[in-house]
Amino acid sequence: MEYALGIDLGGTNVKAIAVTNGARVLAEISLPTGGAESTKWKAAVRRAKGEIETRTGHPPLWIGVVAPGLPARDQRSIAFLPGRLPGLEGLDWQDFFAFERAVPVLNDAQAALLGEVWLGAARDSHNTVLLTLGTGVGGAAQVDGRLLRGHLGRAGHLGHISLNPAGARDIVRTPGSLEDAIGDCTVALRTGGRFSSTAELVAACVRGDSYARRVWHESIRALAAAIASLINVLDPQTIIIGGGIAKCGATLFVPLRRQLARFEWRPGGARVRLAPAELGDRAGAFGSAWHAMNFHG
Amino acid sequence: MEYALGIDLGGTNVKAIAVTNGARVLAEISLPTGGAESTKWKAAVRRAKGEIETRTGHPPLWIGVVAPGLPARDQRSIAFLPGRLPGLEGLDWQDFFAFERAVPVLNDAQAALLGEVWLGAARDSHNTVLLTLGTGVGGAAQVDGRLLRGHLGRAGHLGHISLNPAGARDIVRTPGSLEDAIGDCTVALRTGGRFSSTAELVAACVRGDSYARRVWHESIRALAAAIASLINVLDPQTIIIGGGIAKCGATLFVPLRRQLARFEWRPGGARVRLAPAELGDRAGAFGSAWHAMNFHG
Repeated sequence: MEYALGIDLGGTNVKAIAVTNGARVLAEISLPTGGAESTKWKAAVRRAKGEIETRTGHPPLWIGVVAPGLPARDQRSIAFLPGRLPGLEGLDWQDFFAFERAVPVLNDAQAALLGEVWLGAARDSHNTVLLTLGTGVGGAAQVDGRLLRGHLGRAGHLGHISLNPAGARDIVRTPGSLEDAIGDCTVALRTGGRFSSTAELVAACVRGDSYARRVWHESIRALAAAIASLINVLDPQTIIIGGGIAKCGATLFVPLRRQLARFEWRPGGARVRLAPAELGDRAGAFGSAWHAMNFHG
Repeated sequence: MEYALGIDLGGTNVKAIAVTNGARVLAEISLPTGGAESTKWKAAVRRAKGEIETRTGHPPLWIGVVAPGLPARDQRSIAFLPGRLPGLEGLDWQDFFAFERAVPVLNDAQAALLGEVWLGAARDSHNTVLLTLGTGVGGAAQVDGRLLRGHLGRAGHLGHISLNPAGARDIVRTPGSLEDAIGDCTVALRTGGRFSSTAELVAACVRGDSYARRVWHESIRALAAAIASLINVLDPQTIIIGGGIAKCGATLFVPLRRQLARFEWRPGGARVRLAPAELGDRAGAFGSAWHAMNFHG
């Protein structure tokens, strides 16, 4: 049976899924990469592909890759990823696999967005924004049916929008960014060291800790303002929230919807659908498989 | 000679340009509309078209329209414009002209962007952001060669991004928006009534007024933070600044470039080109003419 192989390469694991164009999963595997600092990830990727081929009995018809960093404009490689996964920057994935077709590369959020549009929370949506709330804040955007890529391939870095021009600059120099307003990376900073993760902070909110609630609601207000901005810039039909922090469920979504009701521009009463991601850590592999099947590079 | 008619309908004037696909202007006219509160604008539009046909000796092959408001998804009309230019909302422009081809409609900033890409400051750019700084802050964006439209046609409302979630909400409810941080509409508010227009404020800066300089530079910092955000979301090659405030020239661009050097993410040293608009008040008519020639609705 014909299938696409979606390979999702992260710092600790490589996940591979064999999926048909009818979304039937034929095989699935996850292997440790050996860490983001070594080159062992290459062997892990080859092993994952080999294992999938053994299980399905034949090689894939298409291969798509998800990896961290900025994909090159021709989508054959990751053009920019300083300091992690040595050997990834500039690697041509079609060459790496000696494959007969182009092997398109997406970043994590782009692939997750395409996966959610194909099989998850944004099925059949043509205008979609994805935000992943975790250590940092990732993002991707689809407008008028197409994934935004942009001049360098960095379009959709939605965590790096400023909510305070006078604020401290984040890892890409955005002052007072969304990422720093809600990402796990700044919880200790935002709470004067009282909490070290969003999970702890939110648990304290649930217990009724008023300090924790104040901090959390300020982060939610920042997120709502950022989402209102993205609505005005990208005009999505659906906004998907994924990542570890999205697992807070109602503790996130109830106050977020309340703030958004204050900030969202609703011309003629129209409002954007806000939904949690559905595919979890398989979104990227599904999205890259779909992208490979539909790629005309 | 075959030509496209670009019609730019504003609150006070309607401008019409007959232009060939080789960018030769055959005729050009501007007529008063009779004000945004009456329906006289319809007669003015018909008169402008008639006058152009008299001068060129024959009717246009294509017609494109620019008007305020949100264009409908099929681009045949303005779907949403409360309270101004009565009769415009919902008017089908192909019907209005009884024309044989579709008459696509764009909003001001979208048309100006396409004009600048065709003949102005962003020639041959495939990833372009336009900001118009005037009474309010308008915007439009082209990504990967296509004008962003979005689910409701509101994509590119770049003035309505939040720079302060705790700030006052603007006309579309965005808290602490870019529009309110630099638009002419808030100069009096931002200066405690000391200045009533950006021109006055900037003139005081040039004279060395330290209060004016502090206010102006805070607005510039907000603009730079917003531009850095838009770079991360839309990844343009070129950012065009138009509108009345852009006429401040060096008093705007010198401090703006300085702030942007602090806030812009420059992966691998890449930086975005920042340029003043070149086509002035003809940009919209040119852009709508180009759009009509290239429209496949």
